[in-house]
Amino acid sequence: MLIVHKYGGTSVGTLERIDNVATRVIAARDAGNDLVVVVSAMSGETNKLIDYANHFTKNPAKQEMDMLLSSGERVTAALLSIALQARGYDAVAMSGRQAGIVTDTTHTYARIESIDPSAMQKAIKDGKIIIVAGFQGINKEGKVTTLGRGGSDLSAVALAGALNADACEIYSDVDGIYTTDPRIEPKAKKLDTISYDEMLELASMGAKVLQNRSVELAKKLNVKLYAKSSFSDDKGTLITQESDNMEEVLVSGVVLDKNQARVTLRNVSDKPGIAAEIFTKLANEGLNVDMIIQNVGVDGSTNLGFTVTESELEAAKKIMESFDHDIGSMDFDKAVCKVSVVGVGMKSHAGVAAQAFSALAANNINIQMISTSEIKVSMVIDEKYGELAIRMLHDAYQLDK
Amino acid sequence: MLIVHKYGGTSVGTLERIDNVATRVIAARDAGNDLVVVVSAMSGETNKLIDYANHFTKNPAKQEMDMLLSSGERVTAALLSIALQARGYDAVAMSGRQAGIVTDTTHTYARIESIDPSAMQKAIKDGKIIIVAGFQGINKEGKVTTLGRGGSDLSAVALAGALNADACEIYSDVDGIYTTDPRIEPKAKKLDTISYDEMLELASMGAKVLQNRSVELAKKLNVKLYAKSSFSDDKGTLITQESDNMEEVLVSGVVLDKNQARVTLRNVSDKPGIAAEIFTKLANEGLNVDMIIQNVGVDGSTNLGFTVTESELEAAKKIMESFDHDIGSMDFDKAVCKVSVVGVGMKSHAGVAAQAFSALAANNINIQMISTSEIKVSMVIDEKYGELAIRMLHDAYQLDK
Repeated sequence: MLIVHKYGGTSVGTLERIDNVATRVIAARDAGNDLVVVVSAMSGETNKLIDYANHFTKNPAKQEMDMLLSSGERVTAALLSIALQARGYDAVAMSGRQAGIVTDTTHTYARIESIDPSAMQKAIKDGKIIIVAGFQGINKEGKVTTLGRGGSDLSAVALAGALNADACEIYSDVDGIYTTDPRIEPKAKKLDTISYDEMLELASMGAKVLQNRSVELAKKLNVKLYAKSSFSDDKGTLITQESDNMEEVLVSGVVLDKNQARVTLRNVSDKPGIAAEIFTKLANEGLNVDMIIQNVGVDGSTNLGFTVTESELEAAKKIMESFDHDIGSMDFDKAVCKVSVVGVGMKSHAGVAAQAFSALAANNINIQMISTSEIKVSMVIDEKYGELAIRMLHDAYQLDK
Repeated sequence: MLIVHKYGGTSVGTLERIDNVATRVIAARDAGNDLVVVVSAMSGETNKLIDYANHFTKNPAKQEMDMLLSSGERVTAALLSIALQARGYDAVAMSGRQAGIVTDTTHTYARIESIDPSAMQKAIKDGKIIIVAGFQGINKEGKVTTLGRGGSDLSAVALAGALNADACEIYSDVDGIYTTDPRIEPKAKKLDTISYDEMLELASMGAKVLQNRSVELAKKLNVKLYAKSSFSDDKGTLITQESDNMEEVLVSGVVLDKNQARVTLRNVSDKPGIAAEIFTKLANEGLNVDMIIQNVGVDGSTNLGFTVTESELEAAKKIMESFDHDIGSMDFDKAVCKVSVVGVGMKSHAGVAAQAFSALAANNINIQMISTSEIKVSMVIDEKYGELAIRMLHDAYQLDK
């Protein structure tokens, strides 16, 4: 089998941990696999380099930042290759460029445009374990680019796709995907399997195990993705296509996002284009709007609600005030949170959402906003009930079973 | 004018010092020059990375070491470019590859084969200050290579040659080339000018200001080379072609090398090939032989003397013992040093060597070995007289005048 491993910053944070990673890679090799191993910078290195740049300016040029930050992954790649060679295994370190990763020209947040796997294929044929510096590529002008925070996950998935690998294993300090945050609900259970779509909903709502873009890419390229721990031998969680088997499961997980602030606009002029105007202005200012809710209007006006991150509430407030001739009254609240229920089974079981509402009502938790998609129900509630709501929902769907 | 600057590890050793380098670069820019700036890794970084690699093995693969070590210079290049941009100057950082440096495939000690200056020329035309990560290039297979210790000097000279620059200024913590080590002879005087050949003789004998290969390359490419300090405004020393003016100067400097051990072989069979056999064997074991002296033999045997570095004496001893059927007696001495007098004026002034011998004789310093070239006289003497000999020779040639 051809397997891609990816080890994050914590997993390669010290020389001893790089030795530990070498042990894992060797075990997979001795089991008869071909291996491509993608590594992040040693934990702390990237932040150290950012601090260095910030000594000179708060807004360093992105092209220079890419050359600066890409060095951390190269160091780890060279060291892991040296560690493997020291133990008698034939390894070769490659930069993103050498691995054939070509990106667009958007520095610090580049998109992978193409991968030329020929150098990797030759090295695999020569019996080498390939160690690739994650998070980076080059653009058509030959300049070094980076893929944004968590970009090494993306490197791993993209290489797995280009090489048609049998699996892509993402190693971190967490041993898989859980039904909810175990710090909130100790009965949280690790999932054996989860679909790409569910994972996307979970990741975007705060499960920090896998970078969202990499899950999207894995779905697109149909890469079998595993979330595993580099500190245990747990088999982790497989993220893959939906299967018939999965549909029996109604709900995979419940998630809490406390970093939410609510904006409610009442009696907004119900004329065409006003919502568009509001959200275009918010987007132009770089604000990330999460939930958006609008009810059907009565008497020529409507109510409009949305959420932003807490730190962006002040900016959102300012923008809203510029619309005050079109808005009856406004209401802002930082003390809210969002609880979400995610599961592919929802699609065909209308009762899932109702079950969530009942669970919260039974505990006297008032629901301020509701938004639903095919596989997700999100509810905005008072922040102080967040953890309680998660535990109640986890119970209601019997996720510990 | 187009000027190449090169800043060593001490000059860019902290963020504050990088700021200081930016100030120097800006001054040269404001004076109306086009600039290419080559930088080393921040001092300590390269050794740290070597220590990291040695955690895994004492003999890491050279290809991996090149990827590992080349990262340090890239960090400095990006940071200096960011520092210049922060002060409103248009700068761009380039790796060795981006600057067009192509080397042979000898990892960790690659030779520059060619330079494609087109990317640099375009950037200069666009009004940019170019910051190049020193010490590195890529080979024809696209793999990162490094040029050996001090390789950033070589990068700077090679780029100056390829760009036909008006000058190449090498900045370190020393403000130029001195007639001798000022720690030995406080009257040592900084030279305004020195020839490439004299500099080569001085550098190979311990003057650590300029890497020898870079002086050779400067000579070959006829690059006007300056040794300057990044911590003062001294105009430094110009290293250039011999001029008529120079010939008036008999001697440019005197140098002490204490890291020498003497091997004397007496009554060596005077048969063809025995010397060749001895030195081939020494070379095959990786020993660096410095001086070699052989007198015309009498009665079918001859005496042969040579010096090696102190740490290699034991290895040399072992090799010599394998020849004992061809050698009458052997004599090894670690307590010796080499004093050398260097000057292009010697070529046409036969008395220079005699003056050196007289100066030592007048102080009862016995000369054990003598070796002369066109522009150098080297003498092996008892180690304890090394500093005294240097002061006497400095006086004899009136180098403080």
